[in-house]
Amino acid sequence: MMKTITINECAEHLLKADNILILMHKSPDGDAVGCAYALAHALRKAGKKAMPACSDDIPKKYGYITNSLEIQDFEPEYIVTVDLADTPLFGDKLIQYKDKVDLCIDHHGSNTGFAKYGYIDADAGACAQIVKKIIDCMGIEIDKNIANPIFTGISTDTGCFKYSNASVESYRMAADMLECGAEGFFINNLMFDTKSRQRLEMERLALESMKFYNDGQIAVIFITRDIMERSGAEDGDTEGISGIPRQVEDVKIGITFREKEKDNFKISMRSSGEIDVSALCKKLGGGGHKAAAGCSMTGDINEIEKTIVSLAGTAL
Amino acid sequence: MMKTITINECAEHLLKADNILILMHKSPDGDAVGCAYALAHALRKAGKKAMPACSDDIPKKYGYITNSLEIQDFEPEYIVTVDLADTPLFGDKLIQYKDKVDLCIDHHGSNTGFAKYGYIDADAGACAQIVKKIIDCMGIEIDKNIANPIFTGISTDTGCFKYSNASVESYRMAADMLECGAEGFFINNLMFDTKSRQRLEMERLALESMKFYNDGQIAVIFITRDIMERSGAEDGDTEGISGIPRQVEDVKIGITFREKEKDNFKISMRSSGEIDVSALCKKLGGGGHKAAAGCSMTGDINEIEKTIVSLAGTAL
Repeated sequence: MMKTITINECAEHLLKADNILILMHKSPDGDAVGCAYALAHALRKAGKKAMPACSDDIPKKYGYITNSLEIQDFEPEYIVTVDLADTPLFGDKLIQYKDKVDLCIDHHGSNTGFAKYGYIDADAGACAQIVKKIIDCMGIEIDKNIANPIFTGISTDTGCFKYSNASVESYRMAADMLECGAEGFFINNLMFDTKSRQRLEMERLALESMKFYNDGQIAVIFITRDIMERSGAEDGDTEGISGIPRQVEDVKIGITFREKEKDNFKISMRSSGEIDVSALCKKLGGGGHKAAAGCSMTGDINEIEKTIVSLAGTAL
Repeated sequence: MMKTITINECAEHLLKADNILILMHKSPDGDAVGCAYALAHALRKAGKKAMPACSDDIPKKYGYITNSLEIQDFEPEYIVTVDLADTPLFGDKLIQYKDKVDLCIDHHGSNTGFAKYGYIDADAGACAQIVKKIIDCMGIEIDKNIANPIFTGISTDTGCFKYSNASVESYRMAADMLECGAEGFFINNLMFDTKSRQRLEMERLALESMKFYNDGQIAVIFITRDIMERSGAEDGDTEGISGIPRQVEDVKIGITFREKEKDNFKISMRSSGEIDVSALCKKLGGGGHKAAAGCSMTGDINEIEKTIVSLAGTAL
């Protein structure tokens, strides 16, 4: 049973610890990377050994963050998780730590409480906003090495301030980070305004596949293995692709069928927030948030499409 | 010769005036609409008659702003321009006022100084940031009717905080506006996350037309009249389309050829800021900013493409 503590207590616990390993979830995103590296930098400024860890490789585009921290080797004495909601997300390399977490810092309301102590704030747009407050409580001055990853966490988790979780605090903290040296233009440009040729070709083929149902209230696209091969795109190129069908004017539910293996599909549903797509996905063994959820299905694509579209139709 | 005054003096001048007409530039964008409506609401809260005016219709998507203000009829006694840099931008209906402007509020360094008094701050990411400060100086409390248009101006002129002009002030003022009631999620969603079917089809056809030159450092797309017809897109659907070729990884100059009439092309050039594309466009009688410029050319599209790509190649 995890004991909930305050931000101040998180700071106190961290200041008492040393040789701190900071765990991110597998398939790390900008918020996970941002939290782990910002906290590692801050703890080192407090004279401690600290190192981020992840079961997967950190995507190259975060190089401006990962390259800012020298590797430290040590025997971990204190384990922290950031932006990590549940033990399956530890991944193969880090699963050994699942019962050894001293402190869990997270913004997922669904956090399963696997740590000794934890601070969960589901109202924080990004987990980086919590980490920033803990760093402040530790009395550590925020420099560019800390500001860049915090800014990255806030900006990526709010979709460059486009999602409903972008709060007054998100904007204000982003401004604070710019004042501390964060390269906001460079980061937002890299994260949101740069696409590989393969990604653009994949988008073109996905748009070609777009179909509409229920008077244009449902839009679906397909990312088949054929599309992946023809475009030359890799898994890393698909980030945010599920947002495309929902962007269409008047569409209430956007659905993306992604063929992971032959006849095995990952289905992503997006709504603008009115319709609870996680309730729909739960019926098929999936889950997620109200406006963004998913599930998996195996079988003939035409049959799967029929099932999903008819299910989505019941929610309109 | 325009006399430059301070923000405080702008507020004083406005508080002394009445029956105030606020002029926007033709083809109004979110910043122009935002400035004019925010200022009109504020002046009415100060007990004055005030009304925005534009030579063109205001695009429907700004309805949440325009619908918030009742129409007032009066004989204009005091003329203000917002976000308006030069007299050709007054447009047909408002050109009658070009020598009668009492106060010019702008953030274009290129402002030609057509008014009696003016306040120009080229460092303001959006002109709405200046208008917000003037409203503060007038001592008028910002409510939702003012906060929504100010937020819209900041968000749209900074490309949802993606462009280099998004400053500490832009983020902080956006946060302030949210606290005053601005519907940030609704606005950003409408402005940046909603596309017509025609727009998406136009994007797909534009992506199909994409070509690369100079080892992928130059990317070009074509929006021909044929593409406009096949997609069913209208002029209003093309906003931001010129940004697409520059988004491609490793591309230094992105070029969009848009066929306005048969064999008459508007050419838009975008760079990530390193290369000065306005210098290139000036050689062909055009102009613009360092990272975003344009020019017009008439003739055979293949010849024009050769000329432009070869010119762009000289800047690499």
